[in-house]
Amino acid sequence: MAIGLGLDVGGTKILACAVTDAGELVVETRVDSPRSPDRLLSALVEATDALVALLGADRDSVVGVGVGVPSLVGSDGSLFDSPNLPALEGLPVRAAFAERLEQVAPGRAAGAARWRLVIDNDATCAAAGELAFGAARGHGDVVLLTIGTGIGGGVIAAGRLLRGARGFAGEVGHIVVDPSGPPCHCGRNGCLEQLASGSALARIARGAALAGRAGRVLELAGGDVDAVRGEHVLAAAREGDPAARELFAELAHNLAVGVANLVEVLDPGVVLIGGGLAAAGELLLDPTVAAFAVEDRRGRGAQSVPIVLAELGPRAGAFGAAALALGLVG
Amino acid sequence: MAIGLGLDVGGTKILACAVTDAGELVVETRVDSPRSPDRLLSALVEATDALVALLGADRDSVVGVGVGVPSLVGSDGSLFDSPNLPALEGLPVRAAFAERLEQVAPGRAAGAARWRLVIDNDATCAAAGELAFGAARGHGDVVLLTIGTGIGGGVIAAGRLLRGARGFAGEVGHIVVDPSGPPCHCGRNGCLEQLASGSALARIARGAALAGRAGRVLELAGGDVDAVRGEHVLAAAREGDPAARELFAELAHNLAVGVANLVEVLDPGVVLIGGGLAAAGELLLDPTVAAFAVEDRRGRGAQSVPIVLAELGPRAGAFGAAALALGLVG
Repeated sequence: MAIGLGLDVGGTKILACAVTDAGELVVETRVDSPRSPDRLLSALVEATDALVALLGADRDSVVGVGVGVPSLVGSDGSLFDSPNLPALEGLPVRAAFAERLEQVAPGRAAGAARWRLVIDNDATCAAAGELAFGAARGHGDVVLLTIGTGIGGGVIAAGRLLRGARGFAGEVGHIVVDPSGPPCHCGRNGCLEQLASGSALARIARGAALAGRAGRVLELAGGDVDAVRGEHVLAAAREGDPAARELFAELAHNLAVGVANLVEVLDPGVVLIGGGLAAAGELLLDPTVAAFAVEDRRGRGAQSVPIVLAELGPRAGAFGAAALALGLVG
Repeated sequence: MAIGLGLDVGGTKILACAVTDAGELVVETRVDSPRSPDRLLSALVEATDALVALLGADRDSVVGVGVGVPSLVGSDGSLFDSPNLPALEGLPVRAAFAERLEQVAPGRAAGAARWRLVIDNDATCAAAGELAFGAARGHGDVVLLTIGTGIGGGVIAAGRLLRGARGFAGEVGHIVVDPSGPPCHCGRNGCLEQLASGSALARIARGAALAGRAGRVLELAGGDVDAVRGEHVLAAAREGDPAARELFAELAHNLAVGVANLVEVLDPGVVLIGGGLAAAGELLLDPTVAAFAVEDRRGRGAQSVPIVLAELGPRAGAFGAAALALGLVG
């Protein structure tokens, strides 16, 4: 048995998991996310130490550590475009983390081969996790969309992660699907992220509430339009509120346009929906599948592409980082 | 020296080239494109025979034949979505061509190993051609857009053609970049093909002519708005007509939105512009590069992706089919 350590760096917490090559969670822990580059390195070392301590005698089975970050990760391990964790911008994390691991714990892996050290985009890690241990198992060509505050993603082509020339591939949230849509922090208008993310759901719901078309959602938000969040829409939809379900349908239509674009370019065997909003389950999936059936021309001449929920939930990034550390995904 | 035969099936002609593994054109010929499935097979055999006859003693160096078709090509060699050559729809060309080659010329490759027989989408072939012999040489990750009446394309990822789960990948012309755009034959609205192809240039020009903003273009079309074609815009732009150049700029903006979307997903090391409209050269390329610089957020944190003209011109598809027959591209 080999064990990989997977660290998923989020906006407030680092989730750290030790995972076997069979996909079993051995131990896990959380540490606070850092606000400065130097503390990021300390936090990564802290999370690694915590996992190693929890593993006890199993520590000798560790073959590497993977780190997922909410940034574009260059092939050299440096980070770009990190709106949710600006401390990471431009940081050559891989080299720095390797150096710090060596400083803090020389001979950490004494007697064993050097640990494999991998840094990658968090959504790319999630795709690796689903491929190794989740809903993408057995597929060669996969698109994962992680739908949360924003939209990230990962692409698997011919059984391997699609990385591109500089390691930036798979940014499915920043395809423009409506140039007259809302401005995106990336500088363009109408990115998929602005039209089909959890934030988009909240914005769509606030618009509907203002127009008097989202009574129950507004009620759950205490009657304050500005307080309307995605979770209020989800709660109302779970109660069966038709207006809330209509809001999901609008979001799902936007999502389906983006998915159909990705299918044209990538022709995946399966499309996975993950991220925080995937917790909505069928409330998100069913209208997305229905809207995609309208958008997908492939469904006319050949079998349509299945869209399914990702399986690893909030641990997808950490499990994927561990899968990369284990060398299970190329 | 090995020779591959490459057949590029167009709407009116089949271009047939015999190409060495060093990318040299040995002989070429053209035969009429067929209008029925049965005649397609005859035409493919006819083109193959014509090349073999022209090759003379070099025929013994032939290792295979590749066929590029204006259709989606399933992994089993059957064809879908062939609007410009409806005769191909649903046809299992690979098996049928192999059988016909065998019937018509048993022992064609007597004494040698069996010919490699490859059928693929014409734009995918063009990407293979540019990778083996043209502007994509030395790159691992490439996007080619072939801009003609429509927009096709091919994607190279990690040095290999991106084929997807069913062989349909790379349909870059059918990503929706403006849902309020013109309807596409594929059933969606505002596909890149409807906004940035040669047909789109003509449509944009007719609109401008109607509005009195394309005087020289209209003059070249004999004063008849309905007669305005892309070649009139090109001719006027070559004369330096500012209104015609503005039409290219509008097309280039649409194209750049699509290219930026593809860059987000695929992170290529180079983007190639090929197809008939690429004959416009700098008139198309310069405004596209300028518009892309606005759309491309990668250019802020890292080096922007170069957009360059493809090199193989109208022979790209045939050369690429030959490259596939030669086994130069996987």
